[in-house]
Amino acid sequence: MTHSQRRHNLKAKIGAAGLDAMLVTDLINVRYLSGFSGSNGALLVFADEREAVLATDGRYRIQAAQQAPDLEVVIERALGRHLSCRAAECGVGRLGFESHVVTVDGLDALTAGLQDTGTELVRASGMVETLREVKDAGELALLRLACEAADAALTDLVRRGGLRPGRTEREVARDLEGLMFDHGADAVSFETIVAAGPNSAIPHHRPTDAELATGDFVKIDFGALVAGYHSDMTRTFVLGKAADWQLELYQLVSQAQQAGREALRPGAELREVDAAARQLITDAGYGDNFGHGLGHGVGLQIHEAPGIGATSAGTLLAGSVVTVEPGVYLPGRGGVRIEDTLVVPSKTPGASESAGQTPELLTRFPKELAIL
Amino acid sequence: MTHSQRRHNLKAKIGAAGLDAMLVTDLINVRYLSGFSGSNGALLVFADEREAVLATDGRYRIQAAQQAPDLEVVIERALGRHLSCRAAECGVGRLGFESHVVTVDGLDALTAGLQDTGTELVRASGMVETLREVKDAGELALLRLACEAADAALTDLVRRGGLRPGRTEREVARDLEGLMFDHGADAVSFETIVAAGPNSAIPHHRPTDAELATGDFVKIDFGALVAGYHSDMTRTFVLGKAADWQLELYQLVSQAQQAGREALRPGAELREVDAAARQLITDAGYGDNFGHGLGHGVGLQIHEAPGIGATSAGTLLAGSVVTVEPGVYLPGRGGVRIEDTLVVPSKTPGASESAGQTPELLTRFPKELAIL
Repeated sequence: MTHSQRRHNLKAKIGAAGLDAMLVTDLINVRYLSGFSGSNGALLVFADEREAVLATDGRYRIQAAQQAPDLEVVIERALGRHLSCRAAECGVGRLGFESHVVTVDGLDALTAGLQDTGTELVRASGMVETLREVKDAGELALLRLACEAADAALTDLVRRGGLRPGRTEREVARDLEGLMFDHGADAVSFETIVAAGPNSAIPHHRPTDAELATGDFVKIDFGALVAGYHSDMTRTFVLGKAADWQLELYQLVSQAQQAGREALRPGAELREVDAAARQLITDAGYGDNFGHGLGHGVGLQIHEAPGIGATSAGTLLAGSVVTVEPGVYLPGRGGVRIEDTLVVPSKTPGASESAGQTPELLTRFPKELAIL
Repeated sequence: MTHSQRRHNLKAKIGAAGLDAMLVTDLINVRYLSGFSGSNGALLVFADEREAVLATDGRYRIQAAQQAPDLEVVIERALGRHLSCRAAECGVGRLGFESHVVTVDGLDALTAGLQDTGTELVRASGMVETLREVKDAGELALLRLACEAADAALTDLVRRGGLRPGRTEREVARDLEGLMFDHGADAVSFETIVAAGPNSAIPHHRPTDAELATGDFVKIDFGALVAGYHSDMTRTFVLGKAADWQLELYQLVSQAQQAGREALRPGAELREVDAAARQLITDAGYGDNFGHGLGHGVGLQIHEAPGIGATSAGTLLAGSVVTVEPGVYLPGRGGVRIEDTLVVPSKTPGASESAGQTPELLTRFPKELAIL
């Protein structure tokens, strides 16, 4: 889908919401709608056929012209204010703004610029995020590349013996990140988590100089960024020899993760997807040791809609890309998390014999417990 | 300075602003005041002697206890809402919130939680950022380490012949990033800019597979992150042989950068610091080719207060850490930027014979034009 088609889809939503135009100030949303990826930008999208206007600052004059050749580019300091005044000049009556992004002070500045005009600022939150939830073919292709880079990097790391006693968490993280670059990543998606032994009980542990030791769980949560799109995967290994409690813990999380993956179908209540995995963990007596949601959307952001948690409202959409990542963390001992990124299928299992019934697994590194 | 001392300083500001407590929701501010570095957290700081309360989610239960052992840690989902209700329970009348951080929708949620309580939400923007502007000794030590890592990495890159015709921008960026890790960086501060030839005319160019060629300007803007603190440096090289226009352009930017550095003194108007460098560029006829501000604060964020630009209000504070980074960009031909990170001295030159009169240069890689 071209950026123009995405803007076309937004126009329909703007009109349906009774707005004449929309001021998009979230940078990721600006990128999604225009292709412009600079660190400062805003976009004015009209409900009618008029073309959108992109604003950025002088650092990005050339980049904006290259990335968004179909748009008028305005170089300005106060982007939002300039575009809202432009909307007023263009006769916009009801101007939507991203009330989940614009700060309280930011709204003041917009409002001040519109005094004595006929333009009214109207809250409109999450409109572009809703569009972004369902990925188009181009986005899916990039998400596959990002997940492949991560898969290939972890495969190389293990093959080369990169996970062995005596290496530090930090060394492992750095190797893995280097291998992601080798396999086409533009950057890492987020700070790589390598957590060994008791550190594996810390869900979001930052790598230290702690050395991996025989008998440790080693939990690795990492992702690659390719052309703006993220991957997200967690695998947990055991070094040397697994104790019974480790085998049991791994099996439990593995079963919960499978249940979560199998619950991915269009129309499923988000909280029921979470519950499908969580129930197994709770029944095993570890409910208090799974202190985060089951998953989240992945795309231009590493965390985006939908959130899949115990209190999430809403349902899964066909073609959305989400993680399934249950974990059980035993403070002082260790923890296991297993995470995949998957595409929600377009059909409910059993509804037809054709393809698209099961979630497409984007992160394909094996999930059987590997004892290295 | 301990985190407790920083909170103590904030308490004084809270009281002086006529507030009973402050809800801190900016993550960097939370980290500055508590030491907690997770990706989700909020802090309630009372004006009186009561100790602050830190809120985060279940992923960070262990990390929060480790990083902020002196604080009560509350595990919650809706952090801001929970802490504002806590403030109400504690009898807080006027509760400040970060109106430059809290979104319009976020304020709604806070307000709804305080209905039928005696607690009033009061705008209080930039209070912690003002404290953060002047760096304490511990912060300066980390900033020096970050800048040293960057210096050492670039030195290694050049020594090893890493900048030569035939290499791609992307290869150079990756080498440089690897070398920063070798020299102690935890991460890169921002996406490394390596811009060769005509790409050097793009102020914020993202590295591509374009190959470096003889006669190219090669502009490199990069930084290292050490324990949360950033460095920021830009150097521009020429490969092989410099043309006259390149020598002239480099000399102009170099002189402007020196003028900017010399203008760094406590009490200086920010816009006059910008003007000190900009005037030289404007006089040379390139005013339109320097389309960004002269510099910015550096600390826990790569861009923080103060901004040093043509329209910046306010003055420089002794002990703040800022960049000086003029640039001239000639579309289609090439550009030069020279950037240092420096500490604003505590005394005006000539005011006394003691130390602290000239800015401390944190990024020490040579600035003479290197023709490689």
